[in-house]
Amino acid sequence: MRNPKVVVIGSGKLAHQLFPALHQTGNIDFVQVLSRKQHKGSKLAAILQCEVISSLDEIQESADIIFLAVPDSEIKELSSKLSNHKGAIVHSSGATDIEEIQHSNPAVFYPLQTFSMDKSVDFTAVPICIESPSSDLLKILENLAKSISKKVYFLNSEQRKYIHIAAVFACNFSNLMYQVSEDILDSKDIDPTILHNLIKETALKIQEMPAREAQTGPAVRKDSNTLQLHENILTQYPESYQKIYQLLSQQIQLNDER
Amino acid sequence: MRNPKVVVIGSGKLAHQLFPALHQTGNIDFVQVLSRKQHKGSKLAAILQCEVISSLDEIQESADIIFLAVPDSEIKELSSKLSNHKGAIVHSSGATDIEEIQHSNPAVFYPLQTFSMDKSVDFTAVPICIESPSSDLLKILENLAKSISKKVYFLNSEQRKYIHIAAVFACNFSNLMYQVSEDILDSKDIDPTILHNLIKETALKIQEMPAREAQTGPAVRKDSNTLQLHENILTQYPESYQKIYQLLSQQIQLNDER
Repeated sequence: MRNPKVVVIGSGKLAHQLFPALHQTGNIDFVQVLSRKQHKGSKLAAILQCEVISSLDEIQESADIIFLAVPDSEIKELSSKLSNHKGAIVHSSGATDIEEIQHSNPAVFYPLQTFSMDKSVDFTAVPICIESPSSDLLKILENLAKSISKKVYFLNSEQRKYIHIAAVFACNFSNLMYQVSEDILDSKDIDPTILHNLIKETALKIQEMPAREAQTGPAVRKDSNTLQLHENILTQYPESYQKIYQLLSQQIQLNDER
Repeated sequence: MRNPKVVVIGSGKLAHQLFPALHQTGNIDFVQVLSRKQHKGSKLAAILQCEVISSLDEIQESADIIFLAVPDSEIKELSSKLSNHKGAIVHSSGATDIEEIQHSNPAVFYPLQTFSMDKSVDFTAVPICIESPSSDLLKILENLAKSISKKVYFLNSEQRKYIHIAAVFACNFSNLMYQVSEDILDSKDIDPTILHNLIKETALKIQEMPAREAQTGPAVRKDSNTLQLHENILTQYPESYQKIYQLLSQQIQLNDER
């Protein structure tokens, strides 16, 4: 099977992590990068050893796949502008239904991971969720996914939507909790690295037991003195920190009773 | 220096992790365990190769240290009942001031970690926060702490209080977020292990950059369509999940603007 010829649209954090990883496998030929952000687009094209283009009209007709690494809100319109292209259109969004793609050969290739520009990702353990009504296209995407990851899932848009919202809690909201804890320690000139081991162990603990069983701390042990002490301390910080403390402590107690 | 002779009061999760680790170093002689919970007390005493007792009156007069591994709310009263004992009284609580100890030779030995009965803890990287007005006692505790951990901190009660509340956000509240994500996936029969890599990477990412810079997801990128989609999905779950989603998404946006 010859390598698929792929055009990339977008040059954000996901694009800068995923496509170089795919490029390194040698199983894919990137042919063009299109990006509104010229500097990032050129940087990505240089890594992928392909040309950078500046409009949809320039997309090669012979491309097999046009990969959309763009904000969710742009997928529908962008794909409709490409509806006559004979290749496939693939998006990489967790929250977006495959039906948003206005094209006869749609697919989804969603890596379940948090991406930053500066921290390079080892894809081996990153779940990649793929979906397509076309079995041929699905096979191509499966091969690509398996060339970088050991965890490839065939999931429909409905399942992916629930995974995505669960990921917001597990990743984005956990990270907010880390941020609040850094704020609290910063305010007392205490080095936040003192929490790093605890944070790591908390994340690893739920790989061995359900989170419900792993819960510890003043809320779950109904230690009302400590809860009160903490609420008093939090009056020094933004009011919302107190609200978050109360709401989450209540939820821990509710979940414990269920 | 001869080994300190130590009496343990309490046999909960912390006691079952910390004291066996100290016992293994050979630098401490456990002499008695006192616990209201007979079964757990006997189990711990067997591990520590010492006798189990059932009342404060039985505590050996020659004990150097009485270690309180009891609920925070019991530290004050319990220590006042031991005020005539000539040894030192040490508590292991993050939230409790050293002054709660009603004894002339008080100290704190606080391991910053989340403890479960079934997951044994490697103390090497666990920060241990110690405090005492007595330099002799502090030296003994420092030696004990260093015999199990590479991270020993000399912190006062005020600093420890802030570390403890920061730990509630970083550990207990993160764990609640994991729990909500497990609930959401369970409700759709999706194996929650699909999130394990993401959870681990999120925890490791902030060891390389501040949590503020590590933030990703629909809230920080102000993706109002996805936020709305998620709020709609959450109407299927306890109402408080929606409230948590809204409050935390708002906070991510507030922190991003600061």
